Amino acid sequence: MASYSPPLRDMRFVYHELMGCDALTDLPGYEEFTPDLIDPILEEAGKLCADILAPLNRSGDEEGCRLENGVVYTPAGFREAYKLFREGGWTAISCDPDYGGQGLPAAVNVLVEEMICSANLSFGMYPGLSHGAYRALAAHGSEELKRVYLPRLVDGTWTGTMCLTEPHCGTDLGLLRTKAVPQEDGSHRITGTKIFISAGEHDLAENIVHLVLARLPDAPKGSGGISLFLVPKLLPDAEGDPGPRNAVQCASLEHKMGIKASSTCVLNFDEATGWLIGAPHKGLSAMFTMMNAARLAVGVQGLGLAEAAYQGSVAYARERLQGRALSSAKAHDQPADPIIVHPDIRRMLLLQRATVEGCRAMAVWVAKGLDEQERHPDPAVRAESEDFVALMTPVVKALFTDLGFESANLGMQVLGGHGYIREHGMEQHVRDTRIAQIYEGTNGVQALDLVGRKLGAHGGRYLRQFFHPVSAYVERHAGNASMAPFVGPLGKAFGRLQQATAQVAQKGLADPDEAGAAATDYLRLFGLTAMAYLWARMAETAMERAEAGDPDGFYAAKIATARFFMERMLPQSGALFSQVMAGGASMMEFDEAAF
Amino acid sequence: MASYSPPLRDMRFVYHELMGCDALTDLPGYEEFTPDLIDPILEEAGKLCADILAPLNRSGDEEGCRLENGVVYTPAGFREAYKLFREGGWTAISCDPDYGGQGLPAAVNVLVEEMICSANLSFGMYPGLSHGAYRALAAHGSEELKRVYLPRLVDGTWTGTMCLTEPHCGTDLGLLRTKAVPQEDGSHRITGTKIFISAGEHDLAENIVHLVLARLPDAPKGSGGISLFLVPKLLPDAEGDPGPRNAVQCASLEHKMGIKASSTCVLNFDEATGWLIGAPHKGLSAMFTMMNAARLAVGVQGLGLAEAAYQGSVAYARERLQGRALSSAKAHDQPADPIIVHPDIRRMLLLQRATVEGCRAMAVWVAKGLDEQERHPDPAVRAESEDFVALMTPVVKALFTDLGFESANLGMQVLGGHGYIREHGMEQHVRDTRIAQIYEGTNGVQALDLVGRKLGAHGGRYLRQFFHPVSAYVERHAGNASMAPFVGPLGKAFGRLQQATAQVAQKGLADPDEAGAAATDYLRLFGLTAMAYLWARMAETAMERAEAGDPDGFYAAKIATARFFMERMLPQSGALFSQVMAGGASMMEFDEAAF
Repeated sequence: MASYSPPLRDMRFVYHELMGCDALTDLPGYEEFTPDLIDPILEEAGKLCADILAPLNRSGDEEGCRLENGVVYTPAGFREAYKLFREGGWTAISCDPDYGGQGLPAAVNVLVEEMICSANLSFGMYPGLSHGAYRALAAHGSEELKRVYLPRLVDGTWTGTMCLTEPHCGTDLGLLRTKAVPQEDGSHRITGTKIFISAGEHDLAENIVHLVLARLPDAPKGSGGISLFLVPKLLPDAEGDPGPRNAVQCASLEHKMGIKASSTCVLNFDEATGWLIGAPHKGLSAMFTMMNAARLAVGVQGLGLAEAAYQGSVAYARERLQGRALSSAKAHDQPADPIIVHPDIRRMLLLQRATVEGCRAMAVWVAKGLDEQERHPDPAVRAESEDFVALMTPVVKALFTDLGFESANLGMQVLGGHGYIREHGMEQHVRDTRIAQIYEGTNGVQALDLVGRKLGAHGGRYLRQFFHPVSAYVERHAGNASMAPFVGPLGKAFGRLQQATAQVAQKGLADPDEAGAAATDYLRLFGLTAMAYLWARMAETAMERAEAGDPDGFYAAKIATARFFMERMLPQSGALFSQVMAGGASMMEFDEAAF
Repeated sequence: MASYSPPLRDMRFVYHELMGCDALTDLPGYEEFTPDLIDPILEEAGKLCADILAPLNRSGDEEGCRLENGVVYTPAGFREAYKLFREGGWTAISCDPDYGGQGLPAAVNVLVEEMICSANLSFGMYPGLSHGAYRALAAHGSEELKRVYLPRLVDGTWTGTMCLTEPHCGTDLGLLRTKAVPQEDGSHRITGTKIFISAGEHDLAENIVHLVLARLPDAPKGSGGISLFLVPKLLPDAEGDPGPRNAVQCASLEHKMGIKASSTCVLNFDEATGWLIGAPHKGLSAMFTMMNAARLAVGVQGLGLAEAAYQGSVAYARERLQGRALSSAKAHDQPADPIIVHPDIRRMLLLQRATVEGCRAMAVWVAKGLDEQERHPDPAVRAESEDFVALMTPVVKALFTDLGFESANLGMQVLGGHGYIREHGMEQHVRDTRIAQIYEGTNGVQALDLVGRKLGAHGGRYLRQFFHPVSAYVERHAGNASMAPFVGPLGKAFGRLQQATAQVAQKGLADPDEAGAAATDYLRLFGLTAMAYLWARMAETAMERAEAGDPDGFYAAKIATARFFMERMLPQSGALFSQVMAGGASMMEFDEAAF
């Protein structure tokens, strides 16, 4: 099984050279995050991931989680690894210093998250869910709740969950039935069943903080009648130390295709004690404040597993001797050539590579937007950044996870039969990455978010944050011969995206089913165009930097991958364009009974 | 979990109405296979699959196979099911009547195979591998071997295997090391280790007949020094009854991503007794005589699982109430609409449907070619059919299994979180279908077969069997307004395929890496064009038939699916065309050290 090697060189390229994130030190609160601080953080995170988390990935998958008498046991080694993770301060890196956090920029955090996902996605679920709970509570909780819970979520002694889904409702939370009855002391009694609750019960932390969506007795029907509650597994005493057990139980663990070391629970709340977070009936919007970050984080799961699969398939392609190069034998001293000589193997490796590096650049781009949205002194810049992040969030979530799954499958294809058996760990990547296309809003829901909420909103205001820079970039490089192999295809794809956008916006106004029918293909077209923009910029940066020398060939490889992307991946945009332009009649006119 | 419902109506459409397979009764040996015989056979096969095999699919996956003291136990129920399968004559349907077979046309057999794969792919592996061994033995075995082994393989009391792969060699069989030492009595002693041997050891049959590739002492190096041997698990006595145990042992079972009820063995041969099949050093070509049939069969696995996934996702989409239709609520008496109202759900269902019905038509088309190749009285027709089957085989194998995997994943996406847990069986379809892209020659190898062996061979003679009929069809319908929505897109895709073919042939002559770099995308372009041709023909047939009435809406749905295919699936051909035309430099010039 291939070991994990943190892609630090490319991370530094994206952070410092491509995206100029060193300028984040200009933002209030980020002054100290100079390159000499950032690089060692990434290195340390990489070590933790490679040395501690990655070695537990396959054993965790084999062993899975175990439920015994209401207690969930994580696989061997997870408790010790979590202790190291927590003590190393990794649960705190992107949290508010007021609550013990380190306040690192999102643009750094996203790279740390990528490495955690590459090394051990199941492990990453526990701190990942905690961080979601942290964010919702930090944004909407009362001072009293924040004082008790936030420091413990930040230092990782407690973990958190997000309890949304019920057996009959997932995407449509308006249907949810869990009840909350107010008590005289200001608390509530929560009763209901939640399913698919990641990290819902486990043995890593001394307490678990459930954030639960439920209905108050006077709640209006539908999604406008949902409130958010904090329900701890153990009720804290006056000092905040875990006290008696609350009435929430893990009824069973789901048997899943992958991420088997992540405990996915059915939770029964039986008059459990909880406290309201935010205003009554405003639970969904409170949830949505952490949703952007959570969706970006799920996108990064796709990226992380694509990187892991890439590394595994490159290692195999170098080692596996099979057949001879089509042109002429290469490894004359061996009985056969390594399969990396074959064009079709290289095609698959480069598809993975173009995916990984393109998505990584996009992840940092959007995360930097998140930093500016939160900290830029100019409110106009903050507003623009907010638009940009809102626009790109569904694209990142769906594109990265779709491409991540494709990359894991390409990895398996490179390994052939050896990819299908457990030994090399590649089939686990395929199984693990598959969930990312589904949870935190299926990729179809992301596409509807893009065409339904982001495209037309405020007269297309969100779109400007993408269209303007790309349009300006294409114009600026119009006469540049060395950039033509990149800007030419980008311009073509961008033109298609503009046309498709106009059609989707126009037709969708008259008939929302038209927008819905276009949504998934439109999102992919948008995502590929965004990747093309970033690949053109990466080629440009690499060419500039290479003028001062390229001893390890890093920049040459970057330019070569950019070329591959333009020639062999971006052409999909033409097909997607045709499919969008064909409209939705072929779907909507199909007789439902005939399916 | 959705039950399996045999798609008999569509099978009858393809067999009788579209492909005119009733005319197969004109071929010698097929005289009796009139529609009144064929339809009940399909019905009976459907019943067996729905009632006996499908109910064991999920339990078989959960339980898997078990190795104890060299004995492999299949999951509960498999022995009883195999007994029924065998006694029902299903192991014999496409075998030679001289050995107890029923001699059914391949065009029928392919439909039976599809249903078996839909119901229980793991189960189907056991008779499937047997059939491969039957074919190789029937084509190349001595009369004595055939007399003893064929009747037992045909009636299923014994099963067979194909032992090719070794730890260090899969695609490149020239590297294989298993040795065969001739004995004075004419037998051989076989020694070596084989891996990934499907049905290598199990408890379904009283004996197992291994067909083993090995090297004779005087064998030339490479693939021209491989011979084929028959090595029974139990050595038959003079009457052909199973006698003493031969020196072949199952050392371990592979732990696989899917098809867990199919036993995949590491087999150790330790001076096992075997007999040569065919000529010395001609083992690979003997294997290749059954390879076409085996590859078509693996393609059909993709089709079968796409159908199963389609049925599962349609059932879920009708039942799952979630959200409201984008245009206006449909199910006013329900708290939400079934998700089948949503365009993006319909898009996924129609992608599956267009895949399934298109592949089914292609499967019967090619299988009919196989029948004509074997039985047509006119040697010219036989030769043409052989060319056609040789050309289409890699396309069917790779296209069907790629699309089958995509369809299974679309099924999972329709089910959302419920698709990722085991309960509904959809994640099993994803895991099971994934292997079909790998075994029997990876899909990359199929693509190389198409561009390397089939495209240029005999001055492009193979190609004519596809290009001529399609070209004639497009011309014939050029002025037909009602066919324009189908023939227009077909003509465009076909034009692209012709241009791409010219480029691949030309560039590939000068540099085989150019053909290799184009291969996978070219194969998909070819496959989509072939599907477009069949979808046009299906639309045509449906329109003609509908004139006499369409009470159940079958023909209307067919025409609507054809339209969907042309508008939402075929446009991919444009992207594939661009990718092929971009050439291979971006892959081959990438510095190997930089991966």
